[in-house]
Amino acid sequence: MLASWISATVAADCGQRPFTAKAVRSRTGWRSVARAILARTAAMLAALTAICGYAAAEDGYDLWLRYEEVETRSLEAYRNAVTHLVSEGNSPSLRAARTELGRGLRGLLGSDLPVTEGVAKPGAIVIGTPRSSPLVAGLGLDLQSAGSEGYVIRSVRIDGHPATVIAANEDIGVLYGVFHFLRLMQTARPLERVDVAEAPRVRLRMLNHWDNLDRHVERGYAGASVWDWHKLPDWLDPRYTDYARANASVGINAASLTNVNANAMSLTPLYLEKAAALANVLRPYGIRVFLTARFSAPMEIGGLETADPLNAEVRRWWLDKALEIYRHIPDFGGFLVKANSEGQPGPQDYGRSHAEGANMLADAVGRHGGMVIWRAFVYSDEEPDDRAKQAYTEFVLLDGKFRDNVMVQVKNGPIDFQPREPFHPLFGAMPETPLMMEFQITKEYLGFATHLAYLAPLFEETLRADIRGEGDGATVASVVDGSLHGYVQTGMAGVSNIGTDRNWSGSHFDQANWYAFGRLAWNPQLDSAAIADEWLRMTFTNDDAFLEPVADMMMSSREAVVDYMTPLGLHHLMARGHHYGPGPWVEGGPRADWTSVYYHRATEQGVGFDRTASGSDAVSQYAPGIAAEFADRERIPEELLLWFHHAPWNYRTRSGRPLWDELVHRYTRGVEAVRGMRDTWESVGKFVDPERHEQTAVFLAIQEKEAKWWRDASIAYFQPFSRRPVPDGFEPPAHSLDYYKSLSFPYAPGN
Amino acid sequence: MLASWISATVAADCGQRPFTAKAVRSRTGWRSVARAILARTAAMLAALTAICGYAAAEDGYDLWLRYEEVETRSLEAYRNAVTHLVSEGNSPSLRAARTELGRGLRGLLGSDLPVTEGVAKPGAIVIGTPRSSPLVAGLGLDLQSAGSEGYVIRSVRIDGHPATVIAANEDIGVLYGVFHFLRLMQTARPLERVDVAEAPRVRLRMLNHWDNLDRHVERGYAGASVWDWHKLPDWLDPRYTDYARANASVGINAASLTNVNANAMSLTPLYLEKAAALANVLRPYGIRVFLTARFSAPMEIGGLETADPLNAEVRRWWLDKALEIYRHIPDFGGFLVKANSEGQPGPQDYGRSHAEGANMLADAVGRHGGMVIWRAFVYSDEEPDDRAKQAYTEFVLLDGKFRDNVMVQVKNGPIDFQPREPFHPLFGAMPETPLMMEFQITKEYLGFATHLAYLAPLFEETLRADIRGEGDGATVASVVDGSLHGYVQTGMAGVSNIGTDRNWSGSHFDQANWYAFGRLAWNPQLDSAAIADEWLRMTFTNDDAFLEPVADMMMSSREAVVDYMTPLGLHHLMARGHHYGPGPWVEGGPRADWTSVYYHRATEQGVGFDRTASGSDAVSQYAPGIAAEFADRERIPEELLLWFHHAPWNYRTRSGRPLWDELVHRYTRGVEAVRGMRDTWESVGKFVDPERHEQTAVFLAIQEKEAKWWRDASIAYFQPFSRRPVPDGFEPPAHSLDYYKSLSFPYAPGN
Repeated sequence: MLASWISATVAADCGQRPFTAKAVRSRTGWRSVARAILARTAAMLAALTAICGYAAAEDGYDLWLRYEEVETRSLEAYRNAVTHLVSEGNSPSLRAARTELGRGLRGLLGSDLPVTEGVAKPGAIVIGTPRSSPLVAGLGLDLQSAGSEGYVIRSVRIDGHPATVIAANEDIGVLYGVFHFLRLMQTARPLERVDVAEAPRVRLRMLNHWDNLDRHVERGYAGASVWDWHKLPDWLDPRYTDYARANASVGINAASLTNVNANAMSLTPLYLEKAAALANVLRPYGIRVFLTARFSAPMEIGGLETADPLNAEVRRWWLDKALEIYRHIPDFGGFLVKANSEGQPGPQDYGRSHAEGANMLADAVGRHGGMVIWRAFVYSDEEPDDRAKQAYTEFVLLDGKFRDNVMVQVKNGPIDFQPREPFHPLFGAMPETPLMMEFQITKEYLGFATHLAYLAPLFEETLRADIRGEGDGATVASVVDGSLHGYVQTGMAGVSNIGTDRNWSGSHFDQANWYAFGRLAWNPQLDSAAIADEWLRMTFTNDDAFLEPVADMMMSSREAVVDYMTPLGLHHLMARGHHYGPGPWVEGGPRADWTSVYYHRATEQGVGFDRTASGSDAVSQYAPGIAAEFADRERIPEELLLWFHHAPWNYRTRSGRPLWDELVHRYTRGVEAVRGMRDTWESVGKFVDPERHEQTAVFLAIQEKEAKWWRDASIAYFQPFSRRPVPDGFEPPAHSLDYYKSLSFPYAPGN
Repeated sequence: MLASWISATVAADCGQRPFTAKAVRSRTGWRSVARAILARTAAMLAALTAICGYAAAEDGYDLWLRYEEVETRSLEAYRNAVTHLVSEGNSPSLRAARTELGRGLRGLLGSDLPVTEGVAKPGAIVIGTPRSSPLVAGLGLDLQSAGSEGYVIRSVRIDGHPATVIAANEDIGVLYGVFHFLRLMQTARPLERVDVAEAPRVRLRMLNHWDNLDRHVERGYAGASVWDWHKLPDWLDPRYTDYARANASVGINAASLTNVNANAMSLTPLYLEKAAALANVLRPYGIRVFLTARFSAPMEIGGLETADPLNAEVRRWWLDKALEIYRHIPDFGGFLVKANSEGQPGPQDYGRSHAEGANMLADAVGRHGGMVIWRAFVYSDEEPDDRAKQAYTEFVLLDGKFRDNVMVQVKNGPIDFQPREPFHPLFGAMPETPLMMEFQITKEYLGFATHLAYLAPLFEETLRADIRGEGDGATVASVVDGSLHGYVQTGMAGVSNIGTDRNWSGSHFDQANWYAFGRLAWNPQLDSAAIADEWLRMTFTNDDAFLEPVADMMMSSREAVVDYMTPLGLHHLMARGHHYGPGPWVEGGPRADWTSVYYHRATEQGVGFDRTASGSDAVSQYAPGIAAEFADRERIPEELLLWFHHAPWNYRTRSGRPLWDELVHRYTRGVEAVRGMRDTWESVGKFVDPERHEQTAVFLAIQEKEAKWWRDASIAYFQPFSRRPVPDGFEPPAHSLDYYKSLSFPYAPGN
């Protein structure tokens, strides 16, 4: 508490307002005590204020691992529960665990914890594995359910002293357990009777970096790539370690370093040496490195005339390449592949199937324990059919045709990371093939870094989706975690939102999406509201007066985006290319399914994409129970109405409003929701440091401006089709449609 | 001193070694005292260590404005000399001055200075202008020589009390004076009898940012552009203010925000609004914003069919555009223009001269007080002549033909920012036209961010160059500062090395090049060694045991680069395009003067570019005294030998060694110098925080590796021409020439 007081004093002297209620409270309580101490020497105060020079601005770099001192009322109990650390064994992961525990407790408790040889008094924290630590082994804990990555945290007695043990079968489990233990304190949980047993429900928990070798990040809104390829392998930016810590803290155990729109250069010796240097930094934190494989690499860097997966030379080339990679990176995770999609080369260039392509690569890495992750995000260059149908059409026939070390990575929905999509029909349709989930953490279609949109409700909506409509517990999550079909390999990937911005993710609240992805990859059954609460506590404060309104704001934020961008199942209406801002008028260009009019199909008769039997019949790709629901305009969840149906402008929605009026109502509701978010954020200013509060406030102002832009442009565009007026009580668009169409943003980021 | 102790303790507790000798010393002395105080409560120490959470890593973000507490022996004297602050008047610049003074003194002295209404006791610091402050006016200081940007700092008595006054005619001068005053303390100068009178000798002291709207920085090696265009004008990154502070601290008063390879979009309303927001942040710090003008903008964003500078519609368009810009930015500095150079459009596209082009733009901005800075870095697409001659040839005829508000910006040498070039022959050749110096701070040709090369000796060498060979004081500096020809307008530009890297410049020592540029722009007569000493004191420590070896290392560092890259006047031998690494073999491609063979002209007969009368006769562009010296192989400074002469391989150099042996000797000496730099840096580890020491050490290791690469590749390439062996005692190249030619770095930064 004294530290809080000092912090607050320091902050005040640095010209900042004291930045948490906690600090304010403890300041009041302890001011007189502190004064008495400090009065002894005026120089002391001077000295403390000098530390201002060292006080980092609250720039968000520390993410949710801030380890701020716990609030006064918990401190005494925590200090009793945690008095010394016993850590036997020595390995890179155990050292990382010990260092993190020391760092965390120093921040949380305000003191360094003694490290001792054995348990000498109450309050020991004992960490280790039965193999590394005789003390842990002696406790006879049942660690079977922990598996290779899980852990238990338990209040025990050792030699009569109450203690807490963090134990696992493998060293990495100890590190995960340490992060969990610290989280208990960060979120103000009691430490008296701890009984935690955790193991991940998904084996591969992975970030996909769409990072190019020139440091441009495709769909990156947080600056450049954190991988400073040019200075690797020599210069290991300390940021790499902090990246690893953050990932390990939520259990992310794999990272694909390079863009899925792949560059064969990343497989050359020059870059393998660089990737190996990164792998060395990440390894103690349990993170395996993957690379994206450009299918035509044997031609581009191998000098071959073909990349035909059945060609012997090609197969030999990949075998040799895999051998070379594993010489650099002994625990290389494998290849992530985007093939025959959006212009990328692939096996179909040679008349071979996706399975034949994937299996060739799987044979190359399989002998070294590597995986191939083959993306199902494919659609034909010839646009033969509704784009929403193509991945299913191509892949469902291949079920069971992949090697055991192949996973097929499927986006959450059938189009492309829209604010709302129905779950992808492949989930449940490939019982013989492990399907890996691909979520997008970076907000390509949800307002980039400046719109506050907490994505866990989107992830949760997909994961909890009932895939058969029979209420039998068959959900997308049950596919992803392998329980439904008995997949051995399971995985979840998130397209990273990480860049060189000081706050990592482009905005402070976008950090929550990285966090939430990791937590849901560990356990797809987790609740998005609980994750928000957890993240807010770690990132800001445990004060309920802050938590309640801000958690509400987060939980409703994604729905606001849906409302002001693409309500009622509208989708893919963003401006061309960079996807910044509205573009419902986008048409023409290289292919129809890269336009907006392809998706909304607005006419004077109505709006929406008929995907029932009278249209593209995409509904038939779902299980009968779901297909029947989606095909029925009266039964379909209304938020998906225009995804599957072309409805007349006067269609009576469930609110009783005609479709046009309902659209205007929802667009407007979205803007109003953002105004409410701004009010909420303004009201909690006293709980947040000025730097993070200010940036978030400015970003929310941008979001409101852009939400209104979306609303107004959309209404201006659709209104003439509807031949209906903007309903009474609703503002007309601020500008003409021509104005909105005239806006141009050629350098919007991420393109 | 206590603060130092605490800092050291905090650092130690954070797992860092105490990071300055100063800290160690004061720690020893004060440990017992501090112990006695701290023993009163164990919680206090705990509280202090908790501040670790706030202690920023020493990442270099603070540049030379670290304001670390001064060392023990000076502290008492400083505290007596500086007891309170009297600041009358209120303007954005005065507020900035007051804030900076408070911030600086808080760090340097470890306490907040009281701000009082008048001088009440000894030790007042009085800041202001006679207009803003009656107190300053009452002192009757002679401020005439201070002009509009200068200042005086003087020890005075006010009401019988010793005080220090920082006074200027204008508010910005007060800010500059405050930075100077703080620098006195940062560099451990006495404050008893201060008598400083400073005024800049150059009017326009400018950074040229080669920053694109997509945040790519051409020739940028410090990450992306600091200008986050997408989030402007709403989000004003606090970094913009720190950028302004750093520039003001060295007197830089102008910034061209956009790349000279210009984009017309930067002149559209969307981007003008963004530039205006930046201008608002920079204005209190005395920095005027310039933009680059793409000559064809009237066609690209104006819808005209021509950009002919004599066309009435074109002239009208620029007039209107200027009016629009000045509505956004009332103190807009003007346009920086690269025209008819390297593919950029320009007046010659319409048969008009550079002067006609420049004057049209000058007419547009002139009525608002704006300038046009027209770059002389031009060379024809048709390669009619030695590229080194073309700028002179084109511009010397235009002398006197430019409007009064046009300056011609000339690179330091006639080719392109090579490690060494002779001074540009235009200096001295255009007495009727103000010539602005263009230096390159970013190290496009000197090893990017990872090679330590202190550039002030290069700048100084150019500025001090005798342009007539008559020893009459006619130097490049006397042209640039206007004294030789009586220019009213004077200016110096530096191509910025600033990016989003946390340390701003890509490496810690590259900060010195930004600093030195600013100091030399303020006063081109300054001494590069004195600047290095000043910068080292502010950035690291005042300890002589650190300063002497490290200043020596800096001062010799650029010569080391010359040695291992391009000794004896060789030039432009870098790899194609990105210029990373050696490429003496580069030939072919779009134009001869973008190859290496064009410049080195190696044959079995010899090497070097004959620019005497028997060759391109570029020497004749210099004044007779200089031309005669350069044309004479025996008199020319040997470091320029192969710039002007094609010499046989057995040519006897001044060392007595044949040319080939001398080249090998110098290449090798360069590598050895870097080894020496590594040793030096290793030996001063105890004076430097571990973070900055480690990064610098790793970069020096990269530099040694790459220096050897340069040496070996160059020797491997030239040796067959020379038909001579590598001399005895010198290592042969580590690899074959084919190996060096095979290396490829398509994603080297900055391209």
